[in-house]
Amino acid sequence: MTPWQAAKIGDPVQAIDTPALILDLAPFERNLQRMALALQGSAVRLRAHAKSHKCPEIARRQLALGAVGICCQKVSEAAVFVAAGILDIVITNQVVGAPKLLHLAALARQARIGVLVDGPEQIAALAEVAQAQQVRFDVYVEVNVGSNRCGTAPGEAAAQLAQQIAAAPALHFAGLQCYHGSAQHYRQPAERAAAIALTCDAARETRAAIERLGIRVEQIMGAGTGSFQHERDSGIFTEIQAGSYIFMDRDYAANVRAAGELVFEHALFILTTVMSRVEPSRAIVDAGLKASSVDSGMPGVWQRDDLQYVKASDEHGVINTPAAESLSLGERLRLVPGHCDPTVNLYDEIICVRDNQVEAIWSVAARGALL
Amino acid sequence: MTPWQAAKIGDPVQAIDTPALILDLAPFERNLQRMALALQGSAVRLRAHAKSHKCPEIARRQLALGAVGICCQKVSEAAVFVAAGILDIVITNQVVGAPKLLHLAALARQARIGVLVDGPEQIAALAEVAQAQQVRFDVYVEVNVGSNRCGTAPGEAAAQLAQQIAAAPALHFAGLQCYHGSAQHYRQPAERAAAIALTCDAARETRAAIERLGIRVEQIMGAGTGSFQHERDSGIFTEIQAGSYIFMDRDYAANVRAAGELVFEHALFILTTVMSRVEPSRAIVDAGLKASSVDSGMPGVWQRDDLQYVKASDEHGVINTPAAESLSLGERLRLVPGHCDPTVNLYDEIICVRDNQVEAIWSVAARGALL
Repeated sequence: MTPWQAAKIGDPVQAIDTPALILDLAPFERNLQRMALALQGSAVRLRAHAKSHKCPEIARRQLALGAVGICCQKVSEAAVFVAAGILDIVITNQVVGAPKLLHLAALARQARIGVLVDGPEQIAALAEVAQAQQVRFDVYVEVNVGSNRCGTAPGEAAAQLAQQIAAAPALHFAGLQCYHGSAQHYRQPAERAAAIALTCDAARETRAAIERLGIRVEQIMGAGTGSFQHERDSGIFTEIQAGSYIFMDRDYAANVRAAGELVFEHALFILTTVMSRVEPSRAIVDAGLKASSVDSGMPGVWQRDDLQYVKASDEHGVINTPAAESLSLGERLRLVPGHCDPTVNLYDEIICVRDNQVEAIWSVAARGALL
Repeated sequence: MTPWQAAKIGDPVQAIDTPALILDLAPFERNLQRMALALQGSAVRLRAHAKSHKCPEIARRQLALGAVGICCQKVSEAAVFVAAGILDIVITNQVVGAPKLLHLAALARQARIGVLVDGPEQIAALAEVAQAQQVRFDVYVEVNVGSNRCGTAPGEAAAQLAQQIAAAPALHFAGLQCYHGSAQHYRQPAERAAAIALTCDAARETRAAIERLGIRVEQIMGAGTGSFQHERDSGIFTEIQAGSYIFMDRDYAANVRAAGELVFEHALFILTTVMSRVEPSRAIVDAGLKASSVDSGMPGVWQRDDLQYVKASDEHGVINTPAAESLSLGERLRLVPGHCDPTVNLYDEIICVRDNQVEAIWSVAARGALL
C-alpha cells in the first residue's frame, strides 16, 4: 500500500496527490438515480454488479435506491461485502475447488448466497458441501447465450442441470443466468438489440424446457450497462446486473446510442500530473499501466480533445499534444479509464469530490480479492 | 484485500487456492546468480529495478549478491523500501509537485536518494525543497536515448541541466540516466545491439559535453533485462537497472537471443484452476484481467503448447483446447504473465514454492504505491 494518502477530507481537488482515483459525486449520484428511475414501475429489479466498484459504500447506495442485492465475481469478494452487511449476494461465476466451497458455505451461514453452475460436477460438489456444512445455496444454471465463455447450451442441456439441482436436498434451483457479455460492447444499437433478442429466445426456450419438467424458474438474470433496457423490456428477465453505469468508462461511452437509450455520465477519473515536458508535441504524465488498466484501450483525456493519451508504461503515460503551450509541467488532467473494473482494482481508495473539494474517501475494500 | 490467504507455509502446491502468484524459488535463485555472475569482474554494478517485484525480501537478495542499491519508480514505492532498510535508492523518474517533493526530502534524511530531471523547472523545485528541508539529493539528468518518453536531448541540452544542478548548493550532480526502454523488447538481437550502440554514442557525447564544462560525470545508468550485456560491455555505463531478469515474462522470452546472450528462466507464474468445461474446444480458468495484466499480450500456458489462453475478462480466462479430454474441470495450470511488473502489482503476496511445497510467503509491500 501507499504509505500515505493522496488526500484528506476537506482538501481542495488541487491538493490531491497524483495519480489518484477520483469519483465525481454529482454525476455518480445522477447515474445511480437514472438507473433506479429506469427500473421504476417495471417488475425487473437491479442486482448491481459489485465487481465494478468493490466498495461497500457504493453497494449501500445502490441498495438504498432499490437494488435487490449485489453480484460478486469471487467468493472472497463476496466475503468482503458480507462483512460489510450486504446480505443478498449472487456470485455470478462458477466456484470450483474444496477451499472455495468451504468459504462459500461459511458465507451461506450469514447471508443469502447464490452461485452459478454450468455442469453436473459443480452441482455434485455444491450439494456435497452444502449437506456436510448444513447450509443451503441458491443455485442458478448459467446458459451460454452467445458470449461463448461459461454456460451450458440453452434448452434441454440446461434443463437437465436444473433437474439435478432440484433433486439435491441442500440446493435450491433459483433460476437462470443469461448474461451476454460481448453484446455489451457491440458498437451499433442494432447489433446489441439483435444479440439480446437471441439471448431472450434462448432464455425463453430454456425456461420452457425446465417448466416442462415441473420445475419453477424463479429468476432469470443477466444484462449489463450496454444492453439492460432490452432485458428490462423483454418480459422474461427478472433481475439485471449492470455495474459500470455508476462510473462509465471510455469503452462503454464508445457505444453508439439508440434513440431513447439511457445515457450515463463519466464519474470516475484518474487524476494525473504532467511530470515531463521536453518536446512540444509530447507530454509525460505520472499515470501508466499501474494507474489505469489498458485492456480495453488507452484512457481518454477528459474535456481535452486536443490531447491523446497514446502509450502507457508502468508509471508513465505519453500524451500527444498540439504544441508546447498546450500543457505545462505540473499541470493536472483527468483521465477517463478505458475499462473501469480492473482500474478500480489498482487502488486502495476512491477519493470522492464535489464542488472542487474532497468530500469522502471510500475504501476499495475488496480490491485484490481474487480467491 | 482477500480476507484469507491462498496458502500457508508448508502446504503442498496442490493445496494453494487460485488464482495465486507463485514464485518458483529454484529458477528464481538461478536467475539471481546468473545476473551476479554476468557482472562479476566488470566495473559495472547492478542497481536492480524494484518496480518489477515491489518486495523487500527480493531486494535484500539482490543486494546480498552484489547489487549497489535499487531503483524505484515512485516516491511512495521508495518509502516502502526505505522502511524495510534498503538505503540506497534512485527514483528513476521525474518527481513533480510539492507533496511528492516533501516526501522525497523526508526519505533523503534516512537514505541516499537519487532522482532524475529532464528540465530546468524540476531542478529549481528540487533545489528549493532540498535547501528548505536541509537535505541533499543526488540528481541525474535523464537523456532521451531513443525511447521518446522522458529525457532531454543528448549533448549540450543535457550539459546545461548538469550545470544548473552543479550550481545548486543542496543538489549533487550524480550523472546520467540513459535508459532505452523500447530497445528492451526489440525482437531481433541485431536491432537491440544497434539501438544500444546509438544509446552509448548519445551517452558518450553527453558526458563529453558535460566534462567540457569541468563537471565530473560519476555515473551513467540505464539498461534492462533485454539489453544489459551491451551496456555492460560499452565501457561507458557504470550501473545497470535490470528488473525483470528475476521473473522473466512472456514478452521478454519472445526476444530472439544472440549467441552468447544470457538466458533467464521463467520463475513467476499465476496458478489457475479450470472452472468451466462445456465445449470440447474451450476451457475457462479463474484468472482474468484482475489476475494478470494483458498490456503486453495474453499469458502463456506453461509447458502446455497444446493450450492457448486467448481472451481475458475481469475474472475469467478463455483457453482454447484441442479436445475435451485435454483438460478437466478442477485441473490446475501455471500461466506465464505477458508482463510481470503490472501483474505483480495485482497481488498482496508472492507464494514461494520449492519441491512442490510452499516455502515462504513474501509481502508485495509496495503494491499500489502509486504516489
